Amino acid sequence: MSEPGAAGPSPAAIQVSRIMRPDDANIAGNVHGGTILKMIEEAGAIISTRHCNSQAGEPSVAALARVERTDFLSPMCIGEVANVSAEITYTSRHSVEVQVNVMSENILTGAKKVTNKATLWYVPLSLKNVNKVLEVPPIQYARKEQEDEGKKRYEEQKLDRLETKQRNGDVILPVINPEPHTVGYSQSSLIHLVGPSDCTLLGFVHGGVTMKLMDEVAGIVAARHCKTNIVTASVDAINFHEKIKKGCVITVSGRMTFTSNKSMEIEVFVDADPFVDEPRERYRAVSAFFTYVSLSKEGKPLPVPQLLTETEDEKRRFEEGKGRYLQTKAKRQAQMQQAAQQ
Amino acid sequence: MSEPGAAGPSPAAIQVSRIMRPDDANIAGNVHGGTILKMIEEAGAIISTRHCNSQAGEPSVAALARVERTDFLSPMCIGEVANVSAEITYTSRHSVEVQVNVMSENILTGAKKVTNKATLWYVPLSLKNVNKVLEVPPIQYARKEQEDEGKKRYEEQKLDRLETKQRNGDVILPVINPEPHTVGYSQSSLIHLVGPSDCTLLGFVHGGVTMKLMDEVAGIVAARHCKTNIVTASVDAINFHEKIKKGCVITVSGRMTFTSNKSMEIEVFVDADPFVDEPRERYRAVSAFFTYVSLSKEGKPLPVPQLLTETEDEKRRFEEGKGRYLQTKAKRQAQMQQAAQQ
Amino acid sequence: MSEPGAAGPSPAAIQVSRIMRPDDANIAGNVHGGTILKMIEEAGAIISTRHCNSQAGEPSVAALARVERTDFLSPMCIGEVANVSAEITYTSRHSVEVQVNVMSENILTGAKKVTNKATLWYVPLSLKNVNKVLEVPPIQYARKEQEDEGKKRYEEQKLDRLETKQRNGDVILPVINPEPHTVGYSQSSLIHLVGPSDCTLLGFVHGGVTMKLMDEVAGIVAARHCKTNIVTASVDAINFHEKIKKGCVITVSGRMTFTSNKSMEIEVFVDADPFVDEPRERYRAVSAFFTYVSLSKEGKPLPVPQLLTETEDEKRRFEEGKGRYLQTKAKRQAQMQQAAQQ
Repeated sequence: MSEPGAAGPSPAAIQVSRIMRPDDANIAGNVHGGTILKMIEEAGAIISTRHCNSQAGEPSVAALARVERTDFLSPMCIGEVANVSAEITYTSRHSVEVQVNVMSENILTGAKKVTNKATLWYVPLSLKNVNKVLEVPPIQYARKEQEDEGKKRYEEQKLDRLETKQRNGDVILPVINPEPHTVGYSQSSLIHLVGPSDCTLLGFVHGGVTMKLMDEVAGIVAARHCKTNIVTASVDAINFHEKIKKGCVITVSGRMTFTSNKSMEIEVFVDADPFVDEPRERYRAVSAFFTYVSLSKEGKPLPVPQLLTETEDEKRRFEEGKGRYLQTKAKRQAQMQQAAQQ
Repeated sequence: MSEPGAAGPSPAAIQVSRIMRPDDANIAGNVHGGTILKMIEEAGAIISTRHCNSQAGEPSVAALARVERTDFLSPMCIGEVANVSAEITYTSRHSVEVQVNVMSENILTGAKKVTNKATLWYVPLSLKNVNKVLEVPPIQYARKEQEDEGKKRYEEQKLDRLETKQRNGDVILPVINPEPHTVGYSQSSLIHLVGPSDCTLLGFVHGGVTMKLMDEVAGIVAARHCKTNIVTASVDAINFHEKIKKGCVITVSGRMTFTSNKSMEIEVFVDADPFVDEPRERYRAVSAFFTYVSLSKEGKPLPVPQLLTETEDEKRRFEEGKGRYLQTKAKRQAQMQQAAQQ
Repeated sequence: MSEPGAAGPSPAAIQVSRIMRPDDANIAGNVHGGTILKMIEEAGAIISTRHCNSQAGEPSVAALARVERTDFLSPMCIGEVANVSAEITYTSRHSVEVQVNVMSENILTGAKKVTNKATLWYVPLSLKNVNKVLEVPPIQYARKEQEDEGKKRYEEQKLDRLETKQRNGDVILPVINPEPHTVGYSQSSLIHLVGPSDCTLLGFVHGGVTMKLMDEVAGIVAARHCKTNIVTASVDAINFHEKIKKGCVITVSGRMTFTSNKSMEIEVFVDADPFVDEPRERYRAVSAFFTYVSLSKEGKPLPVPQLLTETEDEKRRFEEGKGRYLQTKAKRQAQMQQAAQQ
């Protein structure tokens, strides 16, 4: 089986390394998934913007359009070095696929572990007119199959983006005196005023900044539910349909949708409120599902209290979450069998 | 009248300068009041911790107990240098009074302006046992009157701290589809996971970090109400009754209580939720009133839409706010007359 | 002449890339020298800690001992990508030499410029006993001359470190109502409470964090003097004689020592005050000279107002600064002639 980009790093590959600081982690010392997602996205933004401007023409800034589902395979700790490497693995007429690998490295022992692998899709927007999508210079493939496989991934994500329901009408309503382990008990939201350092050259929020805030809220929901140390286990595919401008207030809200024996699924909504100098109403910018596990002090997954669903909607969402959970489990088993046969 | 500390900087005086960065300010370039409050508190924490450890004995960390009302006299801008100078002006057996002056300096023109003056009270807590309050070494006064005036200020604040109602039962409930300019329309809340950099050596949140978050929420409430550029005009006295530990989730909520022609008063609540590994329930840690004004592009105060009160509680809070507003106005006029007569 | 490391990147080379954000820069959009120094030092700390632990034995953390003089060759701007690459070029028994190159990359135009090159020396300290210096595993050299040249650099810096006077008695005293362009007029200081994210695994401040604070103060001094947009032009060799522990208060003070027609030299002192739980008095941790130039809007160097020296000490320091200035100028001219002859 050929991995994408197996032909070796292209000249355009980049590598970003950074020591993980206490502020990057929870009190148990595990680095937040959101910190890693932000590093991944920054690497992707650099490499795709560089590529899109590699030929003479109108200058552009690559904006994050989509992140494929990513699993956090092993926790990273304070003091370890996060090594993020990114390369472009496919280009369509208007989009760039970037594959990013993250390794944690204990520089005291030399131990290295794969933390996660992610695939991101970027679209070049004109620096002069943010609503104009420009053309992407094609990359060269070492082998024809690489192009074909890339095209297949491109078509799949395109289909998925069309299907995505933004759950636009869905809002998270507060509950008075909720019982422990109900949905209302752990649901949480934060607001954030978008500052200059959150934004790209175009003055719109970096996708990575948004994902970091989403992980922050989802992590609080998970910890409120199980009252133990929790870590991000995976993030479902996220589509960035709507841009968020500098000066907006972002409201990020999360609610638990499903629990298995050892995992919790949290749905997160991001709403943007232009609220100063803008005719536009508050709008839904992104939504996504995050999965968390609870870890013991030895790093072993702990059982999770079952989510108590009360309303019809909560029960329906629980069943939908169960569906996603079983589908992912089946997919993973199929991959393991396939790997074993090779 | 002799100002506290008029005898010149004591040997223990400290000075902190920092260039204001884009992230310190709103999109109009005005530095957030919360950024300044955080700098003020950091200077106070350093000088009072240093003083409390100036004699041999049990080491201690000074914790913020109270900030007196402070007025923001002129806005500070990105690129200007904030000069914060702090000195100890009074000590009681268990507390330290710190006076802090903030000047903005445009280092390109040399222009300096007084931004605000603040008075903070700190209490030394044992480094080994955070629940033990230690004794404060007495300071030397240049003149006897300085000690007497300090003692008067000490007694006044002590009285006020006893009187303060924490509004513990009060919660901010969400409103569905609120009308513009109602209380429900602009009310906002954020959550923040307390990280290591938010905390003192004792592992409890710096008072300045809490005040910065409070100003952030209050500013969003104000901007949502009037949809223009707003700046912090003043903060009422704040008492820090309850400590907040590392790892807690803080919920900071704000609602508008009163509007005059050109100002908005916002009440802010801070609730701490230990939520991991702690037997303690969520509790109210701090509450305070912030006042904002809306500024035109030329920096002139703009008229503010009147707050629409609907419930009995809202009407009562509006009247209470009006009382505080008129009292402050009367006090300021009295001071100006006194100054004119001297 | 063969440059160090000319044999190509060793397997231990690392690369760090990051987009420059508004907070990394001054209001004219030029990235602070301190931001770059901090990135350089982080890359050096990673690569040298990794190397020192590459053989079985007592785990260690590499601590910055010295940074050689570095010139900032061209300014970097907000939105550009800083590409920092580091590799180990020499090892002695107890120290590691790291060479770091910084390139600025405009990802819209593809333009790349060398920003600076730096040489850093690290020493491995035992993770268990911070006062124990461990041995460094030797590196392999592609050619014998590389080892000889490295040894020569090692001996030179060792000599220079022994000679360095820390100016321990020197303090910067405040001046009342100073005249413009005097030393007292522009001198500045800041204090910083050392937080967890400022520190290495050993709980001591990263050299890069210290250098960033030094550059911040020196930049304020320079801007106060000439009241124009200024950028860091060079930093003289800095020796880190004394470690600074988490929880300390750092006071960073700067004063102008010399001006040429188009440059300003600023001396910066770093004093650490353990101030809680430590028997130790405040002590001088680092001192260094920073050179700044003033830039027009087109990026051309502007004339600088002459520094007015008043006291005997100021006149002496001015002459010493002039000596350093002329020496550097002569050295640069010799290098250019040498390059022209090759």
